[in-house]
Amino acid sequence: MSTGIAASIVSDPSRAFAALANVGDLTKATIPTPALIVDLDSLESNIKKMAEHCRQAKCAFRPHAKTHKCPEIARRQIAAGAVGICAATVPEAEALAAAGIRGILLTSPIVDAGKIARMVAIAASAGGAGSVMLSVGHLREATLLAEAAVAAKVNLDVLVDLDVGDKRTGSLPGEPAVELARQIAKSKRLTIRGVQAYAGHASHTVGFEARQKVSREAIAKAALTKALLAKDGFDAKILSGGSTGTYNIDSAIDGMTELQVGSYVFMDVDYRRIGGRDGQAVYADFQPSLTVLTTVVSTTHAERVTVDAGTKAIDTTTTHRPEAKNWPGLVYARAGDEFGAVTSEGGGKLPAIGERVEFIVPHCDPNVNLYDRLYACRGDRVEAIWPVAARRESGAANSR
Amino acid sequence: MSTGIAASIVSDPSRAFAALANVGDLTKATIPTPALIVDLDSLESNIKKMAEHCRQAKCAFRPHAKTHKCPEIARRQIAAGAVGICAATVPEAEALAAAGIRGILLTSPIVDAGKIARMVAIAASAGGAGSVMLSVGHLREATLLAEAAVAAKVNLDVLVDLDVGDKRTGSLPGEPAVELARQIAKSKRLTIRGVQAYAGHASHTVGFEARQKVSREAIAKAALTKALLAKDGFDAKILSGGSTGTYNIDSAIDGMTELQVGSYVFMDVDYRRIGGRDGQAVYADFQPSLTVLTTVVSTTHAERVTVDAGTKAIDTTTTHRPEAKNWPGLVYARAGDEFGAVTSEGGGKLPAIGERVEFIVPHCDPNVNLYDRLYACRGDRVEAIWPVAARRESGAANSR
Repeated sequence: MSTGIAASIVSDPSRAFAALANVGDLTKATIPTPALIVDLDSLESNIKKMAEHCRQAKCAFRPHAKTHKCPEIARRQIAAGAVGICAATVPEAEALAAAGIRGILLTSPIVDAGKIARMVAIAASAGGAGSVMLSVGHLREATLLAEAAVAAKVNLDVLVDLDVGDKRTGSLPGEPAVELARQIAKSKRLTIRGVQAYAGHASHTVGFEARQKVSREAIAKAALTKALLAKDGFDAKILSGGSTGTYNIDSAIDGMTELQVGSYVFMDVDYRRIGGRDGQAVYADFQPSLTVLTTVVSTTHAERVTVDAGTKAIDTTTTHRPEAKNWPGLVYARAGDEFGAVTSEGGGKLPAIGERVEFIVPHCDPNVNLYDRLYACRGDRVEAIWPVAARRESGAANSR
Repeated sequence: MSTGIAASIVSDPSRAFAALANVGDLTKATIPTPALIVDLDSLESNIKKMAEHCRQAKCAFRPHAKTHKCPEIARRQIAAGAVGICAATVPEAEALAAAGIRGILLTSPIVDAGKIARMVAIAASAGGAGSVMLSVGHLREATLLAEAAVAAKVNLDVLVDLDVGDKRTGSLPGEPAVELARQIAKSKRLTIRGVQAYAGHASHTVGFEARQKVSREAIAKAALTKALLAKDGFDAKILSGGSTGTYNIDSAIDGMTELQVGSYVFMDVDYRRIGGRDGQAVYADFQPSLTVLTTVVSTTHAERVTVDAGTKAIDTTTTHRPEAKNWPGLVYARAGDEFGAVTSEGGGKLPAIGERVEFIVPHCDPNVNLYDRLYACRGDRVEAIWPVAARRESGAANSR
């Protein structure tokens, strides 16, 4: 990967970032806070480790961009051997396609004509089937997709989205999924390539053995459905699913063909608490690379200081708290939309006014979603600024 | 205010929104979801009602832009009679100044030279003292500010920021604040204009009488401090503070000169639950104008449906849940980063696949922070698309 000042000017048509030529001067002492930081050494280590695991396990991987929404990181995942990239939203798919990424799998259902047309447009511009796949779990989506594919004369690959236990999206596995596949296949423009099964309830199960049990049960339903599809005459080779929490479980399951791992690039407090394979309390397979850099802006009270990062800067929706990096004993508590209150366990020293503290975030995906840019740092130095290019419906109104 | 297609093309140098000339065709049936909606009739009613209240109460108001981060709404507040606009961050202040807003008060502390320089630059370009004020609660900020003001040859107005009970920012009231003012006044470039007191703990106190008690106690400390400053020879006329929850309490307190009301333009579930003046359970002084528009994307299970708005689209950090607008009995529960699970109390009818549901958000400020644009609607029709122009440190690296 290229580094340095040249690499910092990452083009992104959806954002108007002016000249960043002075990025080489920026350090963690001068970045305006609150800021989202990615540690490049840790990021690169994580990308390499997952790629090596999948190579050894003979299981492909199609990492999920919902975690980072960052074409630059997607390019690095592809360079490391990923077969493509998953997207959770149409704007994510558009940003990835615009950055030249191929093998985009939209993992979420879409059921309105506008978004369907946008996905078909991506497929048309990227070369049709193979460049874009959609996960379909309801006949309504299949119908809209077939109409749009016929109108645009584009062929599309489809995975049958399965609900293997988290009750969010997808067809029930088994016969309902096979029947949906038969309906989808009535369109000559749509080709069933396999199934998708995301077991959200497995990914954060605490304890390796417990996690393995939940994930195996969930994925078994998907493997069985894939076999039923094959028996019914479909060319259903793909079983796409899994997560950072179950990567080394799922890659060993018979029938699993590719992992949709996302958080491994960044890690977060929630994932660090699920426990490691050999009974460790901390799940340390991957290194925490994502932090929010904050500044102490008030020290009026002896027992607590205030930092400039509240609800708008650190996602605290989940149960775990942010963890101070390199400052044991500091405890962060939300203190409104703009501020955090920081205390010290055991009465240890607190940071002074103007001092900066980095926090590992509780949950990486929604935290990235709060920012427009990632400061990519090597040690304390900013090596590049990467746009978070695919936030929600940004830029979407023009491409209905 | 102008309306219609012409009004939709709101210029914003920090964003690259392409031609929105077809905004007139957009309706709530075609806006890509999830989307942030503001109902113009309710917004206009809220802006008018607060302005009329303040006029009658003979109390000025300087509404807080941390709620909307939207120069177009700030312009409407100024047009209704506001004496200026508050900002919680430097990027907010920059966006407001760029939109021609004067009387900007930065309500949060900043303690690094880069941000101080940016505020001084705003003041210099906007005409110096009177155009920009800063709230200062620590000697460190005063020192940096004095140095920058001298270097830029700019005069600046300062409020002494007071901690009146929420322990987040500001000097302790009374003698410590007077001593801080004396230190600040050593710089000829800095002029003390009064005090700021935000009682975050009062704004959401449930029950009018209880809320009145908490707010009066907090503001009394600020009024006393302002009197001490005057006695010490300062031209301390301003007492700025208050909130949407206490606007009709604080505007009647002796010594209060301006309200920093924010949420009243949008309202939210949290504020609707604090109770009204005459004992009503619902605080209905202002109308809920802000919603998130969602689409039902999965209906696999009879007892629940899935909508396309999760943690990334609806802030659920606070305790209350989103409330379905115009659909009694629907209950929203977070179902991960991308989805929400919707059930019906008492087994009522659930929306069908592809159907759209609007939710009043629990807490408006962080919810706006999740979006880049507001769809301003009159009934079901989109009348304008307003950029959320001042999200966090967007565009800041260039202006260190």
